Amino acid sequence: MSLIDTVPSPVRLPAVAAHGQPEPTPALEQLYRGFEQEMLVPLWTQIGDLMPPHPQSKASAHLWHWDRLVALADEAGRIVPVGRGGERRAIALANPSLGGRPFATPTLWAAIQYLMPGEDAPEHRHTQHAFRFIVEGEGVWTVVNGDSVRMSRGDFLPQGGWNWHAHHNAADKPMAWIDGLDIPFAYSTESQFFEFGRDAISPAERISPEFSRSERLWAHPGLRPVSQLQDQAVTPLLAYRWVDTDKALNEQLALEAEGHAATLSPGHAAVRYTNPTNGRDVLPTIRCEMHRLRSGATTRTRREVGSSVFQVFNGQGSVKVGDHQWPVRRGDMFVVPSWQPFTAQCDAGQPSLDLFRFSDTPIFEAVHAWREQVEPA
Amino acid sequence: MSLIDTVPSPVRLPAVAAHGQPEPTPALEQLYRGFEQEMLVPLWTQIGDLMPPHPQSKASAHLWHWDRLVALADEAGRIVPVGRGGERRAIALANPSLGGRPFATPTLWAAIQYLMPGEDAPEHRHTQHAFRFIVEGEGVWTVVNGDSVRMSRGDFLPQGGWNWHAHHNAADKPMAWIDGLDIPFAYSTESQFFEFGRDAISPAERISPEFSRSERLWAHPGLRPVSQLQDQAVTPLLAYRWVDTDKALNEQLALEAEGHAATLSPGHAAVRYTNPTNGRDVLPTIRCEMHRLRSGATTRTRREVGSSVFQVFNGQGSVKVGDHQWPVRRGDMFVVPSWQPFTAQCDAGQPSLDLFRFSDTPIFEAVHAWREQVEPA
Amino acid sequence: MSLIDTVPSPVRLPAVAAHGQPEPTPALEQLYRGFEQEMLVPLWTQIGDLMPPHPQSKASAHLWHWDRLVALADEAGRIVPVGRGGERRAIALANPSLGGRPFATPTLWAAIQYLMPGEDAPEHRHTQHAFRFIVEGEGVWTVVNGDSVRMSRGDFLPQGGWNWHAHHNAADKPMAWIDGLDIPFAYSTESQFFEFGRDAISPAERISPEFSRSERLWAHPGLRPVSQLQDQAVTPLLAYRWVDTDKALNEQLALEAEGHAATLSPGHAAVRYTNPTNGRDVLPTIRCEMHRLRSGATTRTRREVGSSVFQVFNGQGSVKVGDHQWPVRRGDMFVVPSWQPFTAQCDAGQPSLDLFRFSDTPIFEAVHAWREQVEPA
Amino acid sequence: MSLIDTVPSPVRLPAVAAHGQPEPTPALEQLYRGFEQEMLVPLWTQIGDLMPPHPQSKASAHLWHWDRLVALADEAGRIVPVGRGGERRAIALANPSLGGRPFATPTLWAAIQYLMPGEDAPEHRHTQHAFRFIVEGEGVWTVVNGDSVRMSRGDFLPQGGWNWHAHHNAADKPMAWIDGLDIPFAYSTESQFFEFGRDAISPAERISPEFSRSERLWAHPGLRPVSQLQDQAVTPLLAYRWVDTDKALNEQLALEAEGHAATLSPGHAAVRYTNPTNGRDVLPTIRCEMHRLRSGATTRTRREVGSSVFQVFNGQGSVKVGDHQWPVRRGDMFVVPSWQPFTAQCDAGQPSLDLFRFSDTPIFEAVHAWREQVEPA
Repeated sequence: MSLIDTVPSPVRLPAVAAHGQPEPTPALEQLYRGFEQEMLVPLWTQIGDLMPPHPQSKASAHLWHWDRLVALADEAGRIVPVGRGGERRAIALANPSLGGRPFATPTLWAAIQYLMPGEDAPEHRHTQHAFRFIVEGEGVWTVVNGDSVRMSRGDFLPQGGWNWHAHHNAADKPMAWIDGLDIPFAYSTESQFFEFGRDAISPAERISPEFSRSERLWAHPGLRPVSQLQDQAVTPLLAYRWVDTDKALNEQLALEAEGHAATLSPGHAAVRYTNPTNGRDVLPTIRCEMHRLRSGATTRTRREVGSSVFQVFNGQGSVKVGDHQWPVRRGDMFVVPSWQPFTAQCDAGQPSLDLFRFSDTPIFEAVHAWREQVEPA
Repeated sequence: MSLIDTVPSPVRLPAVAAHGQPEPTPALEQLYRGFEQEMLVPLWTQIGDLMPPHPQSKASAHLWHWDRLVALADEAGRIVPVGRGGERRAIALANPSLGGRPFATPTLWAAIQYLMPGEDAPEHRHTQHAFRFIVEGEGVWTVVNGDSVRMSRGDFLPQGGWNWHAHHNAADKPMAWIDGLDIPFAYSTESQFFEFGRDAISPAERISPEFSRSERLWAHPGLRPVSQLQDQAVTPLLAYRWVDTDKALNEQLALEAEGHAATLSPGHAAVRYTNPTNGRDVLPTIRCEMHRLRSGATTRTRREVGSSVFQVFNGQGSVKVGDHQWPVRRGDMFVVPSWQPFTAQCDAGQPSLDLFRFSDTPIFEAVHAWREQVEPA
Repeated sequence: MSLIDTVPSPVRLPAVAAHGQPEPTPALEQLYRGFEQEMLVPLWTQIGDLMPPHPQSKASAHLWHWDRLVALADEAGRIVPVGRGGERRAIALANPSLGGRPFATPTLWAAIQYLMPGEDAPEHRHTQHAFRFIVEGEGVWTVVNGDSVRMSRGDFLPQGGWNWHAHHNAADKPMAWIDGLDIPFAYSTESQFFEFGRDAISPAERISPEFSRSERLWAHPGLRPVSQLQDQAVTPLLAYRWVDTDKALNEQLALEAEGHAATLSPGHAAVRYTNPTNGRDVLPTIRCEMHRLRSGATTRTRREVGSSVFQVFNGQGSVKVGDHQWPVRRGDMFVVPSWQPFTAQCDAGQPSLDLFRFSDTPIFEAVHAWREQVEPA
Repeated sequence: MSLIDTVPSPVRLPAVAAHGQPEPTPALEQLYRGFEQEMLVPLWTQIGDLMPPHPQSKASAHLWHWDRLVALADEAGRIVPVGRGGERRAIALANPSLGGRPFATPTLWAAIQYLMPGEDAPEHRHTQHAFRFIVEGEGVWTVVNGDSVRMSRGDFLPQGGWNWHAHHNAADKPMAWIDGLDIPFAYSTESQFFEFGRDAISPAERISPEFSRSERLWAHPGLRPVSQLQDQAVTPLLAYRWVDTDKALNEQLALEAEGHAATLSPGHAAVRYTNPTNGRDVLPTIRCEMHRLRSGATTRTRREVGSSVFQVFNGQGSVKVGDHQWPVRRGDMFVVPSWQPFTAQCDAGQPSLDLFRFSDTPIFEAVHAWREQVEPA
């Protein structure tokens, strides 16, 4: 069964007049039947939906609780095998107003992936860009074009399109992490390719190094290997480690405390994961960032073109998305649809609130369609 | 009534096992009910649709006959007023397999627009990028930010997003033309803004000059006004005249006949409309080109990521799109969905076959997702 | 004999104290002798020359009269053959304060070139970028990679580095034109390559078409051949015709008269010759423009990093460069050194003053070193 | 006294015929006198110098021994004060064939700078780009726009143009380091600006932190502060520490030993210092790299457009530049002129040979004039 409805659908035009529409007359009826027969739709019946004054997202703001995600993933781990065909034990967030499809937003896929001890997810590649982010646990390695990349709490692993990759759990415990991809964007624009790879990775790839070859080549600040000068639209660095992210955020808050410009607004530090070959986003379609709010701090309210998915990495606080407001804690995930105002606050009793965010912003920047509104300081 | 279904939809997972799916058991049933309750969808039930081996378009190849489009538009001209609210007497091509929506392809809008003698279409602006192409007729001017731009057969008028524009028919006959926009792309990615402008253009704007101010500044080959050096993501040139396009195509075929490289393949000339400030596409999301096939010539078969809409400007011939083959003549419009092979041929008895084409290619190039396959020479 | 002095030169340090310099003592003398022996020079003896508060050009403002240039070139035409070895009958402007070298400015070469009836200048290529501009006459064709390009009054012919080129005079009169190159820049930065080509061009290349193949492919406003999409750092368009330049300048002044923004300042129109593949300068190191001043109009005074060479194309007026002021008329050439203020004025009795200008600005823009100061409006 | 000769110089043309030159006749003599009078120089007397078949540098390959540089700098430290006017106790390498001027190559300045205990070099700024590299010692801080940057052995400190900077020696020993600038390039192209700053830095700037604010913001691999997204032509990171450089080079050699592509050629590792905002060179005009040769390894012979200056950071070996060959050891500096072949070798008994290199390559890349020839593998 397919959840995606691609069955040919007739055009059906409105039978009664709405505001701003012509009065129904026999001639109009006949005209509309002519349109339907020729597969035509007049703009004047559609313009309110198609050309609203500002983005009015089909998606809803929604929150998923981490404990329930993990519980269901764990249950799936027991009864659903992972292997060729299904490819991954990945369970996707389905936005409540996107038709039951596994789309967190109209452009972004977000899923919890789960691997039991000793399990492998088989090798494949696809043009959809992906990343992994690890909110807790360790013991899984992702093997990218033969390079084994450790996954540990707080690490961020971008995965540019069309690279071979597999996962294997080298530990004696299950492990969960989240995947983000541009599957809905590729689905709606129809640009996706997919290939199966080897069914099993080699023994050499099962060795579990602390650092991948990509890190050994690329994770030195401001230093580029002279043997690697070609342009690269996706980052060649396959892991961004928590120790670095945490330090960068702490330094921003410390610099702010010393009186220097370093944060986005008082108490709000943030780093963007970037491609060291060009300083831009790690992936051409997905922006990834880590935000840290100091105890009691609040972000400025902001709305922007495009959608985001957040996961709470650390701490507790509350978030407002449009008309919704939720308390959040470690692992919780939520969606901010296009042009809905967003604010986050760290609870006063917490040392900080860390929010991992990914968004489709690079798409809009690439086609010069991005806008934002930020609450004045 | 809205043709666009944004009602919240529950997740419904398959009740029976398909190929590559786990066997239904009570435990699986319970797991799936848990997924549904928490708004989750597992990848393993979806992967075939979401991650096909290559793009499999939801859109169909389809042909619309110009005579029927014009007849219906003319009838609409008689009974449907143009004015604020409906905004335009534009009648859109609705791809037969895109759910009855006014989408020619998943990313592109194509419509016939029609204006009666003396009529005005009121001023508005929107972030969706647009263009006009005129397959026949004359007498309408588009007023863009106060600059009146003549529309005559063969002319191409790009209309970058967020510029004020209105139309007025200064002639004593109705006039039809086609509009192309990125409405479906903006709709699916949710980046659109819209504003109403003045209800009427000024008397000064009703003056009907042969050439717009934009042409007087910009339509000189290779010459840039030194007063206009800022970067411009959309072309500042508001009309590309047929006399130039025709000459450029003729010269390519003449150069080919003299033994020089100038055409895409034997007998196949083509020009791309470009932004003189950067040599790139006229619009950030839409590529526009004019192709000319010499009598009896055939294009190389090509398939590429992304979709195109064609209109026959001149001549007669035949086109193949995927499994379809149609004879075509002046004004006929057809759609080439993503990754479907396309070939065109000029009838032997015709001097040439001219095809206007627009496509969503710049989007894919901007995010590094474009691919093509071309039949070897 | 070489005019270029590259003989090894000892370091010689000052024997007496200047302002801001240490007092001469026997110890200092000994230290300076040590520096000289080890090929060392202390900054403190040099800083005023090397690091002035703003550019203080080694070049002088200077004017060359066209009638004298032509008379000497004509005399050279009678007694100096053109051919392999000397390569060109080109006579270069030597800035009076640049050491007798054939450098109009520290970066730019400007020369009058002269070809007698029936003469050929043999084929060669070099990495130095070049152009031709024709202030009067016709009858010579430049053959670039086998493409014959007509040279007529007002035409501008860019010539990107490393393209084969020859000249032939197909007329029964001598013809003069000017060449501009980045020879001094390439000389001082040491990046130049040169190769001899065929000694004679082929009969087919002697055919004298009205328009070159490059124009037939590229001289259509905003239209790019789809067969020619690769990036090109130098313009593929080999001639920019006077009819287009003249019209573009006239339109700017007409638009200004109608109340629209189109000129640089009142009565001052200007176009830049640009590469249609990217909208940027025709050559990576040389900017070329045509300026037109309406009768009686004056440019705003401007100074900028980098040097320019001007040639009066039409009309009479006066120019101020630094402390100099000269009346100028058709063909006269003058130099504006780096950071010297420049103003031009069209005589009141003249319809207009047209000034062709070339400069080294793209070099400074490329390395982010360009600055200008413009007199407020 | 000025070492720079800017006195106006008459044109003097050759009195006797050289190869390829016209025979001297009275008419030619008269023509040449006419040229001289009008400040003109014919190409045919110059072409061999100006347009050679490939770059033939005016500069010579030359080696400076570190022990002699330090000895002279130390002597200067005792008898030449540092302060306003002279600005810096910097002693520049003067290429033996560049006219006694303080130019290491036609585009690059290289100097040893020396500061006595407790001394300050006063604040100034200039558009010339600069860097510091420290081959030995510690104790000096450079204060850049108020940010104090520690200088220790192996550190690299880029200093983009037009930033205020001063130096202070906080230690009880003298310290030497090298400065690299694009002074000769700015001098020959005439683009330089200079301003004096405060005579003394503030007490707060005398505090000597281990890490500068710039490092705390920017020295996290692949992580960009979201508060700092604007384009930056020069790197915002003010120190690249040896611990990172050393590790990156070791990892390349280790990866090579494990069978992976990571080095330039067998045994030859290299990193380029890059701007984290765009992945390009740290400075728009100067490329900086660190190279490491494994014991006994040899680089591939290479020649390229543009010049380089090297300093041996560690180890002993030998280098060949054109026809020269020298043994080298810690601190020794040498010059590779444009298009001269270069090879380096690490002595067999040494663990490695580390070479710091800076070059003018970004200039040539920016104007599309760079070329290289590399000995085949």
